[in-house]
Amino acid sequence: MAFGEIDKLAVSTIRLLAVDEVAAANSGHPGAPLGMAPAAHVVWSQMNFNPKNPDWIARDRFILSNGHAVALLYAMLHLTGYPLTIEDLKQFRQLGSKTPGHPEFETPGIEVTTGPLGQGISNAVGLAIAQKQFASTYNKPGFKLSDSFVYVFLGDGCLQEGVSSEASSLAGHLKLGNIIAIYDDNKITIDGATEVSFDEDVAKRYEAYGWEVLHVENGNEDLDAIAKAVAKAKKSTDKPTLIKMTTTIGYGSLMAGSHAVHGAPLKTDDIKQLRTKFGFDPEQSFTVPQEVYDFYQSKIGNPGQQANNHWDKLFSQYQQKFPELSAELARRLKGELPAAWEKALPTYTAKDSAVATRKLSEIVLESIHGELPELIGGSADLTPSNLTRWREAVDFQPESSKLGDYSGRYIRYGIREHAMGAIMNGISAFGANYKPYSGSFLNFVSYAAGAVRLSALSGHPVVWVATHDSIGVGEDGPTHQPIETLAHFRALPNIQVWRPADGNETSAAYKVSLESKHTPSIIALSRQNLPQLEGSSIDKAVKGGYVLHDVANADITLAATGSEVSLSVDAAKALAAKGINARVVSLPDFFTFEKQPEDYKLSVLPDGIPVLSVEVLSTSCWGKYAHQSFGIDSFGASGKAPEVFKHFGFTTEGVAERAERTIAFYKGKDVISPLRRAF
Amino acid sequence: MAFGEIDKLAVSTIRLLAVDEVAAANSGHPGAPLGMAPAAHVVWSQMNFNPKNPDWIARDRFILSNGHAVALLYAMLHLTGYPLTIEDLKQFRQLGSKTPGHPEFETPGIEVTTGPLGQGISNAVGLAIAQKQFASTYNKPGFKLSDSFVYVFLGDGCLQEGVSSEASSLAGHLKLGNIIAIYDDNKITIDGATEVSFDEDVAKRYEAYGWEVLHVENGNEDLDAIAKAVAKAKKSTDKPTLIKMTTTIGYGSLMAGSHAVHGAPLKTDDIKQLRTKFGFDPEQSFTVPQEVYDFYQSKIGNPGQQANNHWDKLFSQYQQKFPELSAELARRLKGELPAAWEKALPTYTAKDSAVATRKLSEIVLESIHGELPELIGGSADLTPSNLTRWREAVDFQPESSKLGDYSGRYIRYGIREHAMGAIMNGISAFGANYKPYSGSFLNFVSYAAGAVRLSALSGHPVVWVATHDSIGVGEDGPTHQPIETLAHFRALPNIQVWRPADGNETSAAYKVSLESKHTPSIIALSRQNLPQLEGSSIDKAVKGGYVLHDVANADITLAATGSEVSLSVDAAKALAAKGINARVVSLPDFFTFEKQPEDYKLSVLPDGIPVLSVEVLSTSCWGKYAHQSFGIDSFGASGKAPEVFKHFGFTTEGVAERAERTIAFYKGKDVISPLRRAF
Repeated sequence: MAFGEIDKLAVSTIRLLAVDEVAAANSGHPGAPLGMAPAAHVVWSQMNFNPKNPDWIARDRFILSNGHAVALLYAMLHLTGYPLTIEDLKQFRQLGSKTPGHPEFETPGIEVTTGPLGQGISNAVGLAIAQKQFASTYNKPGFKLSDSFVYVFLGDGCLQEGVSSEASSLAGHLKLGNIIAIYDDNKITIDGATEVSFDEDVAKRYEAYGWEVLHVENGNEDLDAIAKAVAKAKKSTDKPTLIKMTTTIGYGSLMAGSHAVHGAPLKTDDIKQLRTKFGFDPEQSFTVPQEVYDFYQSKIGNPGQQANNHWDKLFSQYQQKFPELSAELARRLKGELPAAWEKALPTYTAKDSAVATRKLSEIVLESIHGELPELIGGSADLTPSNLTRWREAVDFQPESSKLGDYSGRYIRYGIREHAMGAIMNGISAFGANYKPYSGSFLNFVSYAAGAVRLSALSGHPVVWVATHDSIGVGEDGPTHQPIETLAHFRALPNIQVWRPADGNETSAAYKVSLESKHTPSIIALSRQNLPQLEGSSIDKAVKGGYVLHDVANADITLAATGSEVSLSVDAAKALAAKGINARVVSLPDFFTFEKQPEDYKLSVLPDGIPVLSVEVLSTSCWGKYAHQSFGIDSFGASGKAPEVFKHFGFTTEGVAERAERTIAFYKGKDVISPLRRAF
Repeated sequence: MAFGEIDKLAVSTIRLLAVDEVAAANSGHPGAPLGMAPAAHVVWSQMNFNPKNPDWIARDRFILSNGHAVALLYAMLHLTGYPLTIEDLKQFRQLGSKTPGHPEFETPGIEVTTGPLGQGISNAVGLAIAQKQFASTYNKPGFKLSDSFVYVFLGDGCLQEGVSSEASSLAGHLKLGNIIAIYDDNKITIDGATEVSFDEDVAKRYEAYGWEVLHVENGNEDLDAIAKAVAKAKKSTDKPTLIKMTTTIGYGSLMAGSHAVHGAPLKTDDIKQLRTKFGFDPEQSFTVPQEVYDFYQSKIGNPGQQANNHWDKLFSQYQQKFPELSAELARRLKGELPAAWEKALPTYTAKDSAVATRKLSEIVLESIHGELPELIGGSADLTPSNLTRWREAVDFQPESSKLGDYSGRYIRYGIREHAMGAIMNGISAFGANYKPYSGSFLNFVSYAAGAVRLSALSGHPVVWVATHDSIGVGEDGPTHQPIETLAHFRALPNIQVWRPADGNETSAAYKVSLESKHTPSIIALSRQNLPQLEGSSIDKAVKGGYVLHDVANADITLAATGSEVSLSVDAAKALAAKGINARVVSLPDFFTFEKQPEDYKLSVLPDGIPVLSVEVLSTSCWGKYAHQSFGIDSFGASGKAPEVFKHFGFTTEGVAERAERTIAFYKGKDVISPLRRAF
């Protein structure tokens, strides 16, 4: 690439647009955009993408891991022809605008939601895994359907966050040469100079991870050096590349090089001198010279459209030559699962033997992996405990490792829960209907809370296979026994939190989770064996809640999940022996239950019958469904699981006794369904 | 140190005790103890501690970051004279025993709770910071009251977790030469060989952080090499040291070197051959040769007692020479705050101007830091936003940095929330009444969920100053606006979750948090200004909940926290204008409110009056206090804060209207206080 005046003009345009956005909002971050505009220009000018078709599967991806620099990203989207107008830029950070304060996945051209630091670079590892797996599965001689790169901008913050360390170590192990990360080495964070807390040798650390590390000394101006580094990075096929690019935060501003320019608008005078310095009219805001539009159209818009057209033709030929494979791919690109895939889900009757739900989950995976080529799983080094790997699975590994290859669909994440969550988000964001799932102990999904939140906010339908879901883990003790975990994630918007009670419910949890298009799931599974329930079925359980055991003239409803459902059935039997009528309701997922029609929900939790919830976890989230809760609001204990259950009163007698007290308490009182609300 | 037969015998004894513990429990992890017993023997033999006085402030600390190897730790505690009998070892992992499945802080000799990987090594950084700060504050020429080390054992899992990367990078920056970490390089994790996911160059990475890295090639047998490495590490005064010690997992077992030996008991035959191999009777379990007891008594017990006696004498002389400083230290060692320290807390009247609670928090810190030398704060690179630094604070930094010194009480944590949480736990665990607090946005406390859980489980009374507590952050948008966060932490046992509404409540939150001995706190604070409330006081707010605004013949109680308290007061006024009587209850901390006497609580939330909760966060945790909730159960939005509040209906009219609907809904129905429960 040879650079000239037009490139300089384009860079200045980007810089000033970003500054104007922040000034118009009187809120935002001008510093990083001023420093990184040259890199944005160089990278985007050679990226392969089509702004008119943001979902084109073969495109290069761009991720702004330092998401607070979003004004830069909006400027690039506008200039390169995405549907974002100058008017949209003027509405930066305003309620209801297309340009919120940090990048959001739903905006065309934005690959992942960023802002929470460390996530974007970790998502990039997921995108890179998906690209390798996709290419390995669908590329054929003469048909390179995918050979794209993932470009990432990131700052000191992203590098300090542990999640990026985890993901970067794994990326080095996996030899993901399709990652090109540009580190904005501007030596400034909010607290001041990076030297106050961050003087490690980043380059050496990334070399230790197995990355190629390059250095651009003058990222403020040296377009050639940036282009050369990117070109070199593209040639590094078996190592991800980190380009350490030294810049000046707020380049051009009177406050350049100081943290004052990081997160606050520039002053009016400063903006004026900046415009003058860059050869623009000091009084005009949101100026884009026509030649800059034209340049990007000729450099990006047209070639991108052509490349997309070329790919479409190639894919037509591919469809001729590989009818089956291409049909599968076409289906995936439409975001659809195979017809009747769910017939592969196992079903059970009450005569089948008691099995741990983690084991039932393994049986599901064993049954469906052949139906769903988009299923790509893994575990954070707990494979033999989570039971997340089907027998014949190939590991996703570089071929040189002799441990698998890139067509593999099982990822050895290592003991890196947070990165695993962020990587799943990236795999899902790649497209092609990828359905990533991961294995961890339920208690350690909390390590990944930052990534789980972004799954929910972005609507990535990823699945956490979260085993060892309660005090039922027994001897490992309170450090490993979740208490608050379900309440935590049930309070998070847009996430399913399943806790199936038996085989049919486990199948139902997978059915709803994998058919979900915009909602992630956590499936909490037992370590210990649970009986197959009389009255459960996939059809009932996919509603998120149903009446498992009904009786006439009920005195009480026992509402339970997971291992406490069969316990509640036992308690109902014990109560029946005393002439007390107890219904049992299974509520494997609040989120899905909540979406059912009101009359259905009221048939499950009707007026007139007090509801006692039974779950060996925090009671704090049960207010919406129960009048009274029996749970555990303290930490667990180390001991044999049955003894620990007994210690906390979770026995047939313990539940029955609490049911009787609940009935007595509500005797003679109006009992309205907890579902009924004033608004 | 010269090693002989007795050392070998001691090592074999340790190994077999650990194996016997796991066998007796039929549960646990024999692999790491077999590999690390020699290191344990060498390290403990030269550590400075007194098993008869586990809290001695000058002791060296030992942390088992790979906490699943706890059988090793229990063996060491028993052999060196802590109050842990052979009978206790036989009760390993049994309910109610002194030997639960992972190390727990409350056990004498256990410095921090471990098991969740990555935490221990990060706690060690906190202990090391505390030691440096303590020494810098209290050591005087001729009076070296503290020069202790922190020894850490850790495995591959700890090194893969992001939290350890964050903490290790900071430790390098801070030049914490008092950390000696021994990495059990056994090449095995649960999924098999580490090469499946972890082939980075750990030594190079730690060098990049600024650590000294040493290597012991035969950790299984070479006591000399281990001792030499430890001796060298002790001389590395301005760099933490990582000793990479290559071992064989399950050394001596027939399954040695395989992951089969990681987390399951050895088979009986294997144990027998192991005993024979080590020269023990193959049929006898839990064997400790008397000469091993004697050896540890002479090597550890006696010298430790002498060193403690010597220190006591030194401290007596110190008290003569430095009466004021020593009085302060003696007070701190008793775990007491200064008398009447709370008089320094600011108070307000309704006439005072509206101020953001984050700013009110800054005023508290400014007012109390002089009273409380144990207060040691910091922020994860959000100092100017969290307002966590008092004006004259000295940064905790190595002197060579010229940015502060080790007597400093303000820590620049960098963008490392998870490490910050774990480091606070370590600082608190050091003793001397250290009261660590930290600054972050409330939304990003979730990044540290793993560490917060351990604060609560262990009872470390650390404080999170968590600003930007809601949609009130405005333009930064949904990526930065907490929704589920309060529900998450309110569901966690043993943690205060404050959300003060004004200046008096902010002072109250600090008062209760800092006086807490065994409960951590999160104080959620607003970015935006909030008025000083008529009727608030520290005395009322320290109860966690109180009636702020009372009326006769109340039709409704509005129960609110933080920014929604003044909003509820406004709504009550609007309702009064329509002849509707609304009480307003402020509930700044559920945990503290829960501990009040039942009659007090019922006076706050009495029978007969419906309660409507008003809080701009998830409603899912309000069931215990409210009949109806007004909150936000979706993600937030980017826009000007007042517009975002309006968008979600949180205006005077919006609250009043919902109050009216709640009153209408409960008209004619029995209304019993949500506090009344069946059991």
